[in-house]
Amino acid sequence: MSFKDEMKAKVEEIEKQIRSFLPGEKGFQKTIFEAMNYSVLAGGKRLRPLLMQESCRLFGREGKEIVPFLAAIEMIHTSSLVHDDLPAMDADEYRRGRKTTWVVYGEDMAILAGDALMIYAFETAARAFRDTDRPDLVGRCIGILAEKTGIYGMIGGQTVDVEMTGKPVPEDKLDFIYRLKTGALLEASMMIGAVLGGATEEQISLMEQVASDVGLAFQIQDDILDVTSTSEVLGKPVGSDEKNEKTTYVTLKGLAEAREKVEFYSRRAAAALESLPVRNEFLEELLLMLMTREK
Amino acid sequence: MSFKDEMKAKVEEIEKQIRSFLPGEKGFQKTIFEAMNYSVLAGGKRLRPLLMQESCRLFGREGKEIVPFLAAIEMIHTSSLVHDDLPAMDADEYRRGRKTTWVVYGEDMAILAGDALMIYAFETAARAFRDTDRPDLVGRCIGILAEKTGIYGMIGGQTVDVEMTGKPVPEDKLDFIYRLKTGALLEASMMIGAVLGGATEEQISLMEQVASDVGLAFQIQDDILDVTSTSEVLGKPVGSDEKNEKTTYVTLKGLAEAREKVEFYSRRAAAALESLPVRNEFLEELLLMLMTREK
Repeated sequence: MSFKDEMKAKVEEIEKQIRSFLPGEKGFQKTIFEAMNYSVLAGGKRLRPLLMQESCRLFGREGKEIVPFLAAIEMIHTSSLVHDDLPAMDADEYRRGRKTTWVVYGEDMAILAGDALMIYAFETAARAFRDTDRPDLVGRCIGILAEKTGIYGMIGGQTVDVEMTGKPVPEDKLDFIYRLKTGALLEASMMIGAVLGGATEEQISLMEQVASDVGLAFQIQDDILDVTSTSEVLGKPVGSDEKNEKTTYVTLKGLAEAREKVEFYSRRAAAALESLPVRNEFLEELLLMLMTREK
Repeated sequence: MSFKDEMKAKVEEIEKQIRSFLPGEKGFQKTIFEAMNYSVLAGGKRLRPLLMQESCRLFGREGKEIVPFLAAIEMIHTSSLVHDDLPAMDADEYRRGRKTTWVVYGEDMAILAGDALMIYAFETAARAFRDTDRPDLVGRCIGILAEKTGIYGMIGGQTVDVEMTGKPVPEDKLDFIYRLKTGALLEASMMIGAVLGGATEEQISLMEQVASDVGLAFQIQDDILDVTSTSEVLGKPVGSDEKNEKTTYVTLKGLAEAREKVEFYSRRAAAALESLPVRNEFLEELLLMLMTREK
């Protein structure tokens, strides 16, 4: 099977697992169930659950505990998109060609749908306790999920990003925003996979570092594509960073240095992975694809 | 010590414990830390942690695992107030005599502060795993916290409440809103206390039922006070339900039947508590106070 076909099959499997946790659309609170499902089923690459699952496979021990976490991380990711799109935030009316949640369900329901997804992620993750002989590891994974989502993770990055909109951003702050806003959930994915896969403490740390580098490379590549690609290839407008007067690695350091950075972090991440006594070629290829993507 | 003095001392102790988990206001994401702390430290009766602690004491076994949960439940409660006050929701500019979070920090930061508190509640609760020999019980408590906060709990109740604003609400739906919006977090508080206190399955269920009745009685008493009290006694405007064309137990069933309901649920809750082989007089008095309060 080609990498692309393998990826497709894996994503379809994950898609099924995510769906199995979504609420049935009935009862007095039907509208919120619909708004949640509309948001989660809007498409998306399911990258975070995929990284989690493959990181778990890398270390060999698979267990049923990971399944609720695959759905949970995608719910968290979706909740952040729902709130990001709100009128008081980015005011986006479309995402992946579909109307955003607040446009369809109203601003109040979109706030509540984001909240609902955040909490339901933990409710889902906590199901992993129900039938496990490793409650300590599951507990640790819940802690990682919360930490990487919260004020020292994704939400922390978002708040700095929001605050700096329209202002010049120094490099250390830009680094901070990218590592937290984009990197943190990737770190959570790969760390949770590693913990449940039976990795050692050093290996869990290594996976955190790999994910952090991947997140940074991914985000800088995004900056590069915004000036070098076309809207036909990307499927979204290019040149938007300049239009929005957004500081990026490209505006800050120029295209050449941005490319060097992507190269540097990609190599470092790949080298770290290769230093492990175990291998997962699919994961290696996936990470390489993320860091050097052309769209 | 009088009940009032005892209450004051206990609340002060809880206040200290909550503060010990709040983030230090430094770093790139300083603003979000400030917005969180402003929201949590806006005052409030700290009722939910108090109920949790006293429910734990009722069953005798105390342990350090409960401390993070005391802070977590208050963070969840605060997060719901921060989002409820937003312009797209109730558009409240003042709460307890202070400007609401969105007025001080802007709408975008208030959305993020509510999100941050929700997630940080779980990050805090997950600290209980760090040094425990009961990870299964801590895991169960995290599950209860998520379930009672989420779409089948508080947030579920809020969404139906938001949807029904300005519309006639039948009694079963009003009951549903009250049990979920107000009752669910009280249930979480008393159940988590019971689980960590070493209660049996039947006792945990009983505490859930008691809390549900207390929540309902508390909320109906709120409806009653809105028409029978004065703004001087309540410290907030009276007659607001009529002004907002809000369906309440009083508008639906009249004052006499509303009073009977409070009486019924109060008695049932008290009787259930008394049926236990253990007693906690402070808890009994606290619950009675909540259900029959004059302000």
